Amino acid sequence: MTIQEAMQSVENIMFEVVNSDVKTLREASRHILDAGGKRVRPRLTMLAYSALGGTDYTYAAPPAAAIELVHTASVVHDDINDHGVVRRGRPSVNAIWGRTFALLTGDFLFTKVYELMASYKDLNIDLAEATVALVEGETLQAAAVKENNFTREVYYQIIARKTAALFKSAATIGAKLAHADEKVIEALGQYGYSVGLAFQIIDDILDLTADTAKLGKTSGIDLAQGRGYVAAYANNGHTGVAVAEAVVEDSDLMTSIKAKLLKGDAINEARIQARTLAQTAIACLDVLPESQAKRELIDLANMVVDRDH
Amino acid sequence: MTIQEAMQSVENIMFEVVNSDVKTLREASRHILDAGGKRVRPRLTMLAYSALGGTDYTYAAPPAAAIELVHTASVVHDDINDHGVVRRGRPSVNAIWGRTFALLTGDFLFTKVYELMASYKDLNIDLAEATVALVEGETLQAAAVKENNFTREVYYQIIARKTAALFKSAATIGAKLAHADEKVIEALGQYGYSVGLAFQIIDDILDLTADTAKLGKTSGIDLAQGRGYVAAYANNGHTGVAVAEAVVEDSDLMTSIKAKLLKGDAINEARIQARTLAQTAIACLDVLPESQAKRELIDLANMVVDRDH
Repeated sequence: MTIQEAMQSVENIMFEVVNSDVKTLREASRHILDAGGKRVRPRLTMLAYSALGGTDYTYAAPPAAAIELVHTASVVHDDINDHGVVRRGRPSVNAIWGRTFALLTGDFLFTKVYELMASYKDLNIDLAEATVALVEGETLQAAAVKENNFTREVYYQIIARKTAALFKSAATIGAKLAHADEKVIEALGQYGYSVGLAFQIIDDILDLTADTAKLGKTSGIDLAQGRGYVAAYANNGHTGVAVAEAVVEDSDLMTSIKAKLLKGDAINEARIQARTLAQTAIACLDVLPESQAKRELIDLANMVVDRDH
Repeated sequence: MTIQEAMQSVENIMFEVVNSDVKTLREASRHILDAGGKRVRPRLTMLAYSALGGTDYTYAAPPAAAIELVHTASVVHDDINDHGVVRRGRPSVNAIWGRTFALLTGDFLFTKVYELMASYKDLNIDLAEATVALVEGETLQAAAVKENNFTREVYYQIIARKTAALFKSAATIGAKLAHADEKVIEALGQYGYSVGLAFQIIDDILDLTADTAKLGKTSGIDLAQGRGYVAAYANNGHTGVAVAEAVVEDSDLMTSIKAKLLKGDAINEARIQARTLAQTAIACLDVLPESQAKRELIDLANMVVDRDH
């Protein structure tokens, strides 16, 4: 079975599991799933599993699908809080169905994760912890904006929890599904964690530099919410404060902050940091024997920092 | 160990598990837990467990705590959608911390359920299904309001999912924790299901008749949202339509609908229905040997329909 077949299996499971007889939940869930997305988290799980000799995709695909549903649920709720109206190149769930149904759709996707994971006793703990971290990271972010305290240190705390934790568990779970030994699980977890940090840094840069059409989601929102790597990076916090103030959504102010950030070295510095993290991640893969899956894990780390959307 | 001790154990577990280093999540979770609430769902679990000979409360308390956290999470999200500002006699989470943090606190509580249930493999499926049903019930309710389609039949579909399913799983899980046989698990599930329906009917009546101070939550909200047993009951749907229109939150219109409902037979009819359900529930307990816990299960069913808050 190829990685393409495995990913198709993940896709099928996600669509199957959201098939509720409640029309709005079914349609809103399919809407967000249909839009695609990069599927980088379940891909990571399946590649880690495969790289460690795993071949039973029917066994490994449900946890991979559950991981992507955690991300999808958080995206749906995120768009409520950020007033995001475009996601994955489509109107967001809240833009079409409104806030109430978007909140319930996110809850629905979160609960479907339980269902998928119910029979994976030990892995359940990994995913639960990562999901808690994700929610904590989102909360730290909202608090940093509110308290006007958006330094580089805080930024790292935020992205470690809201993004890197789930990437780490995606890799860890893949390795555990393949019954890898402790040292290998640890290395794969480190790989996932570094890739996750790099992924979020690039996401925040793209949010600042790409337009909505290319990005497929409302751009500038992360900036408006006071986050964005560059915000915290430039002047180590001072600009962060300015950005936090932009939450008032003064579009003139936004434009000037954006211009200021784009002019300085902040974005380059951030890109270099992301590349370093990707290289660190790739180094963790030394524990793996050569294989197609290993090469694809290397490609995945590079893709994460080289992408333009 | 007494039921009081068991319930204290449930309480301790809930407070422990929400102890995040993220201040807002910790404080908002404690705020809603501190306010108390009836704890009828975990009580049901512990009583069912005890009535079937279970004595290891350290084993049974975590799933009972998880069940209450599902309910608590749904309450926090519900108050966002309903604009509820009072809950359990205190300001609601969204009233104090705002919508963004309330949404994240609800997500946090939902994810803590995973953590508590991670090692209870089979029971996990029961709780996952009940939680999905709860979210589906909430969605059906919001859809019924939006589509102006609030008949008695729809009302029953809603309360079966949003309330009775979790009560059923609370009892089922208690029985399964005690390793009861299939027939007994089934009977306890039926008991929980009927108690849940009765509980919601009375809740909706109280929402209409009690004032906010006594009720401990913003009253009239369920009516404003177009739900409320009585609404669907009076004239089998016709009044339901009128109530759905009240979503516009015209307080004069609200008052007149409320007066109309209070005058008719609808509330009495609803109360009779709830009592019948409680009696049906109690009859299911015939499978149990006599015990203190069994008597308390009978009391619980009666309490549910006799309460005034």
